[in-house]
Amino acid sequence: MKDLYPSRQNNKPEILERKDPVIHTDRSNDHNAPLSKEQLDFYEKNGFLQVNNLFTDEEVSDMQKGIFELKDDSSDVKSDKVIREPESDEIRSIFHVHKDDNYFKDVTNDQRLLDIVNYLLGSDVYIHQSRINYKPGFTGKEFDWHSDFETWHVEDGMPRMRALSVSIALSDNYTFNGPLMLIPGSHNYYVSCIGETPDDNYKESLQKQKLGVPDHESLRWLAEKGDGISVPTGKAGSITIFESNTMHGSNGNITPYDRNNLFMVFNSVENQLVEPFSGGKERPEFIAVRDGVRPLSYN
Amino acid sequence: MKDLYPSRQNNKPEILERKDPVIHTDRSNDHNAPLSKEQLDFYEKNGFLQVNNLFTDEEVSDMQKGIFELKDDSSDVKSDKVIREPESDEIRSIFHVHKDDNYFKDVTNDQRLLDIVNYLLGSDVYIHQSRINYKPGFTGKEFDWHSDFETWHVEDGMPRMRALSVSIALSDNYTFNGPLMLIPGSHNYYVSCIGETPDDNYKESLQKQKLGVPDHESLRWLAEKGDGISVPTGKAGSITIFESNTMHGSNGNITPYDRNNLFMVFNSVENQLVEPFSGGKERPEFIAVRDGVRPLSYN
Repeated sequence: MKDLYPSRQNNKPEILERKDPVIHTDRSNDHNAPLSKEQLDFYEKNGFLQVNNLFTDEEVSDMQKGIFELKDDSSDVKSDKVIREPESDEIRSIFHVHKDDNYFKDVTNDQRLLDIVNYLLGSDVYIHQSRINYKPGFTGKEFDWHSDFETWHVEDGMPRMRALSVSIALSDNYTFNGPLMLIPGSHNYYVSCIGETPDDNYKESLQKQKLGVPDHESLRWLAEKGDGISVPTGKAGSITIFESNTMHGSNGNITPYDRNNLFMVFNSVENQLVEPFSGGKERPEFIAVRDGVRPLSYN
Repeated sequence: MKDLYPSRQNNKPEILERKDPVIHTDRSNDHNAPLSKEQLDFYEKNGFLQVNNLFTDEEVSDMQKGIFELKDDSSDVKSDKVIREPESDEIRSIFHVHKDDNYFKDVTNDQRLLDIVNYLLGSDVYIHQSRINYKPGFTGKEFDWHSDFETWHVEDGMPRMRALSVSIALSDNYTFNGPLMLIPGSHNYYVSCIGETPDDNYKESLQKQKLGVPDHESLRWLAEKGDGISVPTGKAGSITIFESNTMHGSNGNITPYDRNNLFMVFNSVENQLVEPFSGGKERPEFIAVRDGVRPLSYN
């Protein structure tokens, strides 16, 4: 398959134009969409959207209970799916919860979410990756700028930009506790990064990403073009939807306030993984689902 | 001299009450004050105050030019006064600019500033410490929570809480580029920290503070009591005044936006340094002025 989005092949970074739509349903159908025209316009222009009040207080409280039960159950678990902070050994992420945990399996099948995701991706969808992120107060480390799509394309063989992430805040997100930062409009440009990808890069990159890291000049260019940086904040239960190629990162968190979220990547069933474009070996199933893909329910 | 604010003497942290006023001029004189009653109330209650528009655009632009000229002039300077980032060797701070640099000497003598400072401290004042902080985009590191007074008391022998800091923003301060974070109301409590102070602790602590670090439980308590965390933001030229004992810190900065400021500590001439309460040796003059103290001009 032709590589439409080459990266990590040269010594010089390059900015390429996006070659895929942002909203994959014909927008003449907007009157039937599960989002307002304003919301769809915002998502198309900026590459992300904040949605509040989709879940009831009770549902949010259940999810909050759920992530800590799972964290407690995982405290002694030695598994590649359980990622820990480099210094403190505290649990930072637990992967593959849409399969391994019955409760979170239901959440990823929530019909209200699926209606939105199906519309934006214009097809049946499946979970490409799921995880819970725990960003503890005081010691949470920063996560450098990156486009998820760059990694999924190069390391996992995701062919096109037809995927998105849904992050459900499970603690209140303030501006100061290491929130997600996004560069508005950055989804329209693909930053082709320098370098090569060694096998098993994921083992290190889940703690601290060193490859597929955009250069400072490109980041500055994107931020100037996008008129800055956006920091969606909101109560626990608020949802941030962002396009697969939207540049994002987060600062560390020295405040006493944890920042936890449930994170799900939805991919179109028409955009299933092929061989990694790096030419290297495939990453494991818990990071990049490729076996037995079945569409989630679709009304 | 009796130690009213013991710290680093026990194995257990403790929270003590403040034993000094916050505003040291009798407030029945407020009608003559260089700040409004609302501003004075805010400072007294929260331990900090944001002041915009004190300087003209031209003055701000001159100060911005000034800090980069000084940075360029210092690039090859090997001096204890020039502090560099642990990893990148980039200049992080330059100390003692109120004496070493004629231009910044004038800024620290600005009558508009002095009117405010003299009123808040209720006496003639002098510069206890001055520095320029450069927090470069992309690589700026976090600065953990601390009370300046705790360090000045233990390591420098500052007897009472009768000092304050003035930080002049010399780049636009956003919520996302590692801004100063303060815990409102924390100036009313003194967190007595654990541990001892070795000699020459400052050499390490200016890069990363490890002693005089408040414990997590106390920080959580302060933040809950103060109803959270405040992040003053503003254009270049805006000023943050904060009380010597106000708990503050900052997250790292992965954004492309630098964060620079000119930082001056004013102390009351009636609160001059004695022997360090740690019993250890004095820190150098460029960090803690003790010789030839002369009051700055006072209207």
